[in-house]
Amino acid sequence: MANIQGKIISPKILKGFRDLLPESMIPKKRIIRTLEQVFESFGFSPIDTPALEYTEILLGKGSGETDKQIYRFEDHGGRDVALRFDLTVPLARFVSQHYSELVFPFKRYHIAPVWRGENTQKGRYREFYQCDFDILGSDSVNADFEILQVIRNGFEAIGCKDYIININHRKLLNAILAKFGEEARSQKILQTIDKIYKVGRDEVVRILVEDEGMSADTVNGILTTLRLNENFSKEGIKGKEIFTVLENLRDEVEDKVAAEELLTVFRNLEECGVLEHFAYNPAITRGLDYYTGIVFESFITDRMEFGSVCSGGRYDNLTGLYSKNIVPGVGASFGLDRLLSVLEDKQMFTKKNSVADVMIFNLDDSLIAKYYLLAEKMQAAGINCEVVSSKSKLGNQFKLAERRQVRYALIAGGDEFEVGKYNLKDIFAGEEKKAISIEEIISEIKENKKVNV
Amino acid sequence: MANIQGKIISPKILKGFRDLLPESMIPKKRIIRTLEQVFESFGFSPIDTPALEYTEILLGKGSGETDKQIYRFEDHGGRDVALRFDLTVPLARFVSQHYSELVFPFKRYHIAPVWRGENTQKGRYREFYQCDFDILGSDSVNADFEILQVIRNGFEAIGCKDYIININHRKLLNAILAKFGEEARSQKILQTIDKIYKVGRDEVVRILVEDEGMSADTVNGILTTLRLNENFSKEGIKGKEIFTVLENLRDEVEDKVAAEELLTVFRNLEECGVLEHFAYNPAITRGLDYYTGIVFESFITDRMEFGSVCSGGRYDNLTGLYSKNIVPGVGASFGLDRLLSVLEDKQMFTKKNSVADVMIFNLDDSLIAKYYLLAEKMQAAGINCEVVSSKSKLGNQFKLAERRQVRYALIAGGDEFEVGKYNLKDIFAGEEKKAISIEEIISEIKENKKVNV
Repeated sequence: MANIQGKIISPKILKGFRDLLPESMIPKKRIIRTLEQVFESFGFSPIDTPALEYTEILLGKGSGETDKQIYRFEDHGGRDVALRFDLTVPLARFVSQHYSELVFPFKRYHIAPVWRGENTQKGRYREFYQCDFDILGSDSVNADFEILQVIRNGFEAIGCKDYIININHRKLLNAILAKFGEEARSQKILQTIDKIYKVGRDEVVRILVEDEGMSADTVNGILTTLRLNENFSKEGIKGKEIFTVLENLRDEVEDKVAAEELLTVFRNLEECGVLEHFAYNPAITRGLDYYTGIVFESFITDRMEFGSVCSGGRYDNLTGLYSKNIVPGVGASFGLDRLLSVLEDKQMFTKKNSVADVMIFNLDDSLIAKYYLLAEKMQAAGINCEVVSSKSKLGNQFKLAERRQVRYALIAGGDEFEVGKYNLKDIFAGEEKKAISIEEIISEIKENKKVNV
Repeated sequence: MANIQGKIISPKILKGFRDLLPESMIPKKRIIRTLEQVFESFGFSPIDTPALEYTEILLGKGSGETDKQIYRFEDHGGRDVALRFDLTVPLARFVSQHYSELVFPFKRYHIAPVWRGENTQKGRYREFYQCDFDILGSDSVNADFEILQVIRNGFEAIGCKDYIININHRKLLNAILAKFGEEARSQKILQTIDKIYKVGRDEVVRILVEDEGMSADTVNGILTTLRLNENFSKEGIKGKEIFTVLENLRDEVEDKVAAEELLTVFRNLEECGVLEHFAYNPAITRGLDYYTGIVFESFITDRMEFGSVCSGGRYDNLTGLYSKNIVPGVGASFGLDRLLSVLEDKQMFTKKNSVADVMIFNLDDSLIAKYYLLAEKMQAAGINCEVVSSKSKLGNQFKLAERRQVRYALIAGGDEFEVGKYNLKDIFAGEEKKAISIEEIISEIKENKKVNV
């Protein structure tokens, strides 16, 4: 890899893109693996689709905003191609194309990067990961319930305890609007209500009255029906009150299906003993127009300001653009990068620049094979071992272990191997155990191996 | 996601790109996870770099062939950008850019897709995964030894038993050429010898004599020194013979360093009891010009025709293009897609379209919460459970389980929950156990859960 011209090319990266050093990539990988395990534990299977697709496929649905952000170009064969900007459009294309090969309900997850050339700001990148899971081909409310269970299990598995999953139903919102004869304006009203946490109740009233020309009575009626009074809680309606409120709403509206569906979901959550993590939140509408049933957003309760870290909902037909088959579904997406920011902010993982649990010091190059034989025993027990490849002074090897943030050092020379007893230094605690067996070493390290996320 | 125009866009994918359905993605993910575990067990940490980089960065080193294949375009900001075509150039840029933040020796792995717009042919794709691991900043022969150990552990962990890792050393090849006064022509000679398995010994002699104008005596002398006689073995030199051959070669050449390094590596492999998986193969030269030390290729012995599934070697300086710091290293790359083809050809995994181990049938929608509470117990034991979301006839649910290739069905109605005993059908074996506890069910499923790759 010599540089023929001798000229140095300045090593730099595109704006809005990132390198992930081990200290960032280690926790990211752990969270991805944890979520994958949760998805699979419910029978969701992994799929993959290409990063590049025909632009025509990707823009079929895209909003004007997305069109401008897409990385689009002409390939060697003169084809108009683009990098995917989400995982939903490729999923719609995938399901349409492989419809006859798939077994429905089709439960898939897909964790992969997407690209958007949008303006960069804090926490916004041009390359970021999406982490989607969906149940396709089922219109059962039990599928909605399952998606919520997966989200809850996801938070639990990554060690989050303080989270709230806010639920609403687009059809219940519309039933309420219908009661006030405002169904036609549904989209605009829901988009405005969706902003109530950000702009406040008064501003929502002002927009709907002044900009939309609705009567103040109607607006107040709708908001009151939605329990969005002056003192509404951002955390939504919780516990037993959920059932009272939803039963009342059901009785107030003509189309009772949505309220009944929500009641079923909440009753099942209660029976599973997990109701405390869920709320009925009438202000959650999900601006995106393709949701048609249940919708939800999830927050870490002591970090509400980070916004929703897992959102989703039900849609009537995923594949309308690419196929005549009607495929209803329900799904959600963890915002992986945002979730990582929250966990980092909560100091839920120690930043480490190495995965190694123990470093085997090299006191003598002629002992290398023996060091690796010791490593093999520890590796078989699930311990990550780094053997120091170059012999150097003990002090230097300790310094290396410290810079690596590796907790243990296993120190052994020829004498130790003769008797099969080794020295283990706990660098963090500053303690050393002398002349102990490899079995003792393994149990000591395993006991202290923090299950860091 | 409604289609406003009502026009159907034909769902299609770019030539040379692939969708991975669950039956392909499940084994791929398992192999990736297995290799990640192996890498981490030796203290290699994960990193990530952007898919898009400045073209100038990527082409700094690229050969003319690569230049033509690269996906290159102008982004929204008028920047000349391109998709990475390998993980080595981004690594060189990464190490140069983050030099002061990294702890050397820096041990990293990186598993990610790369893109090349090359002509498609069987088994060649325009988007494919690379799976690289390297030790940077160490010139120790023990680092070479470790990379070989990682490869061996990788094959063992994915369940391959019949593999051979062929080793050679560029400096030993050059020392032999020097003996014949042919050092200057080194690159051409090594590239020709590299083809000996494909074209045969006679053709190698013909090329070097007729095309290169070397004397037949010299060519034969070199090939004889390299033990590439008429009856040379494609599997290289194995077992104790390795030491005899290398000791003789060391005595024959002037620069003995390379032979000594190889002897050290092979002695350590012998002491670790794994020599049987390694060979000294004098015909392996690795055409790429940046290797400067040990080089190696790995084959599945009963599928030699698939070519090397893991190759690599040592290089003097990774970062020459982007930095004045000298960073020597050694590393290798598993050819993930090729490895998957070999394992598929060897029928080493059952193709399944679902990760679920058991399907919990839905006999009654009012039991949904109870089904999920049962699932929770099984999930906690590492069993993947799919609850059938829509109640339907038993026959339909069995049909679904069969199409999913799920082995077990757990069948329970209100009566079963009353007594806490359930029915478990082993669909593959056609056997049913009636009225057993959830603990019995868990142990039955776990026992039969095949550890498929």
